[in-house]
Amino acid sequence: MATQRLTIDNIRPEVRDAQYAVRGELASKADEFRERLEKGDKSLPFDKVIFANIGNPQQLDQKPITFFRQVLSLLEYPALLEQEDALKAAFGYKQDVIDRARTLLKGVQTVGAYSHSQGVPAIRESVAKFIEQRDGFATDPKNLFLTGGASSGVNTLLNVICANKSSGVLVPIPQYPLYTATLALLNAHCVPYYLEEGKAWGTDVKAIRDSVSAAKRDGIDVRAIVVINPGNPTGASLSPDDIKDVLDLAVEENLVVIADEVYQTNVFIGEFTSFKKRLGQLQQKFPGKYDNVELASLHSVSKGMVGECGHRGGYFELVNFDPEVQAQIYKFISIMLCPSVIGQCLVELMVNPPKEGEPSYELYTKEYNGIKDGLQQRATALYEAFQKMEGVECQEPQGAMYLFPTITLPPKALLAAESAGKKPDEFYCLALLDATGICVVPGSGFGQKEGTLHFRTTFLAPGTEWVNRITKFHEEFFQKYK
Amino acid sequence: MATQRLTIDNIRPEVRDAQYAVRGELASKADEFRERLEKGDKSLPFDKVIFANIGNPQQLDQKPITFFRQVLSLLEYPALLEQEDALKAAFGYKQDVIDRARTLLKGVQTVGAYSHSQGVPAIRESVAKFIEQRDGFATDPKNLFLTGGASSGVNTLLNVICANKSSGVLVPIPQYPLYTATLALLNAHCVPYYLEEGKAWGTDVKAIRDSVSAAKRDGIDVRAIVVINPGNPTGASLSPDDIKDVLDLAVEENLVVIADEVYQTNVFIGEFTSFKKRLGQLQQKFPGKYDNVELASLHSVSKGMVGECGHRGGYFELVNFDPEVQAQIYKFISIMLCPSVIGQCLVELMVNPPKEGEPSYELYTKEYNGIKDGLQQRATALYEAFQKMEGVECQEPQGAMYLFPTITLPPKALLAAESAGKKPDEFYCLALLDATGICVVPGSGFGQKEGTLHFRTTFLAPGTEWVNRITKFHEEFFQKYK
Repeated sequence: MATQRLTIDNIRPEVRDAQYAVRGELASKADEFRERLEKGDKSLPFDKVIFANIGNPQQLDQKPITFFRQVLSLLEYPALLEQEDALKAAFGYKQDVIDRARTLLKGVQTVGAYSHSQGVPAIRESVAKFIEQRDGFATDPKNLFLTGGASSGVNTLLNVICANKSSGVLVPIPQYPLYTATLALLNAHCVPYYLEEGKAWGTDVKAIRDSVSAAKRDGIDVRAIVVINPGNPTGASLSPDDIKDVLDLAVEENLVVIADEVYQTNVFIGEFTSFKKRLGQLQQKFPGKYDNVELASLHSVSKGMVGECGHRGGYFELVNFDPEVQAQIYKFISIMLCPSVIGQCLVELMVNPPKEGEPSYELYTKEYNGIKDGLQQRATALYEAFQKMEGVECQEPQGAMYLFPTITLPPKALLAAESAGKKPDEFYCLALLDATGICVVPGSGFGQKEGTLHFRTTFLAPGTEWVNRITKFHEEFFQKYK
Repeated sequence: MATQRLTIDNIRPEVRDAQYAVRGELASKADEFRERLEKGDKSLPFDKVIFANIGNPQQLDQKPITFFRQVLSLLEYPALLEQEDALKAAFGYKQDVIDRARTLLKGVQTVGAYSHSQGVPAIRESVAKFIEQRDGFATDPKNLFLTGGASSGVNTLLNVICANKSSGVLVPIPQYPLYTATLALLNAHCVPYYLEEGKAWGTDVKAIRDSVSAAKRDGIDVRAIVVINPGNPTGASLSPDDIKDVLDLAVEENLVVIADEVYQTNVFIGEFTSFKKRLGQLQQKFPGKYDNVELASLHSVSKGMVGECGHRGGYFELVNFDPEVQAQIYKFISIMLCPSVIGQCLVELMVNPPKEGEPSYELYTKEYNGIKDGLQQRATALYEAFQKMEGVECQEPQGAMYLFPTITLPPKALLAAESAGKKPDEFYCLALLDATGICVVPGSGFGQKEGTLHFRTTFLAPGTEWVNRITKFHEEFFQKYK
């Protein structure tokens, strides 16, 4: 009898060795708990699992924005448009909802057909207008690529950039593990640069420069830098000067800049400046100097006040890329045909929401601001709770959807973790999940400086009861291992 | 001044060298023609571009199935469910539409949240039921992976299977170029086996065996075989005996079987038998012998009478996979978080359509059969036209969405192609596009036996006027190069 062809020892080693903590052991265990609760299991010490491991707003009861979803319903079943009066009278659809659905249908023909692999031309034109209005610089729809969420865009870019196993990409630590996982799959180097925890996880160009030098000494061909701005975890926004520093470094070291700007509207403090805008300003001010800085910037419908993760929509823009390289990027994405067309339509709605004076504007603004204020309030409540906990230090939230506190565990807890065969932060997070049903991600999943321990939690879950659960668990945990 | 970091010479060579003809030069040119026509350009000798290069039914005016789209509209905007009477009275929604939307919403919570990376559990249960009813064998939802179309499933499977540059996968020729392109990206070997053109492009196990032997002689570690059943191009269905032959080969040669079954309902002649069913029968009949045959079978909402390409929905089922390997597959897909949730819901609708006696059944059946009959009629019309053309031979259509005729070009045309720097089939297809606006794909994009020339065209475009355009072009082409 033959044995199975594929075993853990003979599959693609890059796949086997890639790490992806956001949906790792903890998330699987949380899923099991949820299933048990759904089946009526009463033996758990909680009655609900809270998935604070992932920025998934609608799973935690954030309501979708009405305008977006009304338009999408019409795109799915255009026959509804034949009865405008009934739509308005019975369901409260406004004229701008109906008009937008008609415009989008003209652009896509139908959401059931493959689109152009780069995305529907009319939608790319709308995205181009949005970027022009945001930044004040021209945008060519030919340089825009609609994607199935930012993740798929990152995958495309890294596939093209990483030529071989000596290629390296600078990635901030802590980071979203998509970057390290994708680099591992491509057998390329993650060149880490550490964010400054003491400065709300800000970017320090000196730290980046040191990382580049160290990588070069190791023979790594450093090709690109990933900047997450506003940052994940805390949403710190880079100032125009910070961005210039990164772009100067890109000129000096000849690096492609990947600007992950999916949190551009999740900003509580300061103001978002895009890399595209800053690059445009510098190109004007210093003719020639920045003309070959290749910039790829990403955006998504999953974050912000849109929070439509399940629709898998996003885009990236390429600036200053060699047309031949851009053609290769097009070929690469065309193998997967096209991103979800309804997801593309949602990108259009995100970048072109109702304007002042339009019938849906008032409700849209109310919903949008309600979500924004709610996020800020929850972030503050969670931050305040962390400040009171023993052995926990947390940076002030500035945006995004996460907090990333440091924890200092008692020596007995470290020993207990060791004898359980777990990393200490993992051990803490598993204990938290077992006791409270709250799923967070250990800092080791994102990277953390040697000798420090963290965990990442979203502040998306409604209410504050769950925050109290964390506080209570934490006290008991410290009591136990004191 | 620095030069650009990325050039055609230093990007990932696997990306640069991958070929993907379905959306290559011809498709780009066709897109340009469409744009010119939309902008009112009158200088072209046609007034419409027909994209016969890709199985994209709704682009060519196939109507979506009402039941599916009504349910999706409710999922996008669940507030519609608060006015059931108005939905029924003004828009003709039936009770089963409303009920299904409620059931799906219970399963997904919202289409705006990331789901479980393998897909919504309730939807996987529904798919499992469908497979059990189709095949008569148990299916565990834990072995099902919902995907963003079959393409993304193939990408996942090949990523895990291809360990290194000596890994090889058997691929039928002609084939859908996704397979060769993905293998090229992974720097693994495509081990071609030729389908029998004389037998409506049927599968010949002897040819496969010869290919395996040749590959082994070349030091290739042949790990898997791709079977497209029903076949692309002509939709030939493998008989139960044919399938047994392939499974026997899989046992002998210790191969993973990838059964691409996306055309399972596009069958005009004969009956579809799934690999899962046949494997189940053989496992019962010969205990032990087939227990380690790893089978991955794929399905999609893009083909069949569903034709919802733009929604990017599909699934694959794993049978007899090592649980450790399956866990790695889960980790791999989790990096991209999840497939479009509305696409997942469409998978559920496809596998669980209205049943006899339910309110939407009659309309569903009418629409479904109308599409099926229309496809068969167009296939026949195109086939008959090809039979009358000089230098063209075509196998009888049996299903799928394509015909793949052989063309024998006059020597003068071959010379003209050479001096234009084109492959002869490419030269012919470019001339066809220039003259008629009809975009087809040269046989070289799918693979063809040395010395033969083909092109692939879908038979999705409505009417027969376009068929006449091909006939007229072909006559003039032959006249010119005689």
